[in-house]
Amino acid sequence: MDESKNPWKVVSRAAVYENQWIRVDHHEVLGPAGGPGVYGTVHFKYHATGVVPIDEKGNVILVGQYRFPLGAYSWEIPEGGGLMDVPPLESAQRELREECGLAAKNWAEILAMDLSNSVTDERSVIFLAWDLTETPAQPDDTEQLQIARLPFWEAVNRVKRGEIRDSMSAAALLRVALMAVQGELPRPVADLIGG
Amino acid sequence: MDESKNPWKVVSRAAVYENQWIRVDHHEVLGPAGGPGVYGTVHFKYHATGVVPIDEKGNVILVGQYRFPLGAYSWEIPEGGGLMDVPPLESAQRELREECGLAAKNWAEILAMDLSNSVTDERSVIFLAWDLTETPAQPDDTEQLQIARLPFWEAVNRVKRGEIRDSMSAAALLRVALMAVQGELPRPVADLIGG
Repeated sequence: MDESKNPWKVVSRAAVYENQWIRVDHHEVLGPAGGPGVYGTVHFKYHATGVVPIDEKGNVILVGQYRFPLGAYSWEIPEGGGLMDVPPLESAQRELREECGLAAKNWAEILAMDLSNSVTDERSVIFLAWDLTETPAQPDDTEQLQIARLPFWEAVNRVKRGEIRDSMSAAALLRVALMAVQGELPRPVADLIGG
Repeated sequence: MDESKNPWKVVSRAAVYENQWIRVDHHEVLGPAGGPGVYGTVHFKYHATGVVPIDEKGNVILVGQYRFPLGAYSWEIPEGGGLMDVPPLESAQRELREECGLAAKNWAEILAMDLSNSVTDERSVIFLAWDLTETPAQPDDTEQLQIARLPFWEAVNRVKRGEIRDSMSAAALLRVALMAVQGELPRPVADLIGG
């Protein structure tokens, strides 16, 4: 089977909604089995980035905010959207600075994910960051954020208990936890959070 | 701070697109800081479910398909959407049967996530399943699937290398891997995949 071949045939496409962040397209299609159908897709104009920032006490820095689409409050790793032509690392560094007032001397990419691929093309890249220093925070005026420092393994337990539910946060914290117990963390981070 | 309080004020709302699976709403809002803006949200009519099926040799069963919104082929755990009034476990059992022709005697919930909470309200629940038996597969006629059995830890390595990118798959495989190394797996699964 040729995995590069798109088995969907697009009969027609119409943009039905667009704003600064997303574009929604309605397609009339012939599906993989040849039958007619429709497919609505959500194109994301920004690349999602996230960062697991570990401080000098082995805490992870988390951000709390009300998520309007969900209608619920959510505690998450620092996240945001970056322009497609900006390297994800730069966008993650900007988000950490703007949301948390922090810079980090060291960064490592730990995960790349497609967040919701049945409907969207939203892509994400997530980093581990350590050796933090304070810089002035510049929260986006659409955001009302709380910042918390939580022992790393307590944050992992919150994922296990379903209390941290955001997909980027859950996957990233599990990834770092697995790195810790498998001895794959950079030594300075391993020394801070243990295994 | 009252985390149950929605700091966004909705000035107007209009449904701008709807199909069987999603509804897109455009909102005029006053943001948390009080300023005017717009917010486009994607409501999902189905609840996402996923399952990490472990066979008697310690393989995980994966499903390959072309993801139309992404424009890319994707290898994933068996996943699908369930009706909101159907328990997620039932929907996951149905997906495993339809996509893979498998039933499982034992199930454990391992993860609950919101997949893309800056734009959508898509919620997911993911299960671990073991003691598999074959049943007739009934693939959806919109799907053209490949099924693969992969040693569990090889699948985890594919997440680490960014080759398995679907968020539910990545998070679920990392979760089971962490359960394995932390001694949290049900004994029969631990015996199959080790730590």
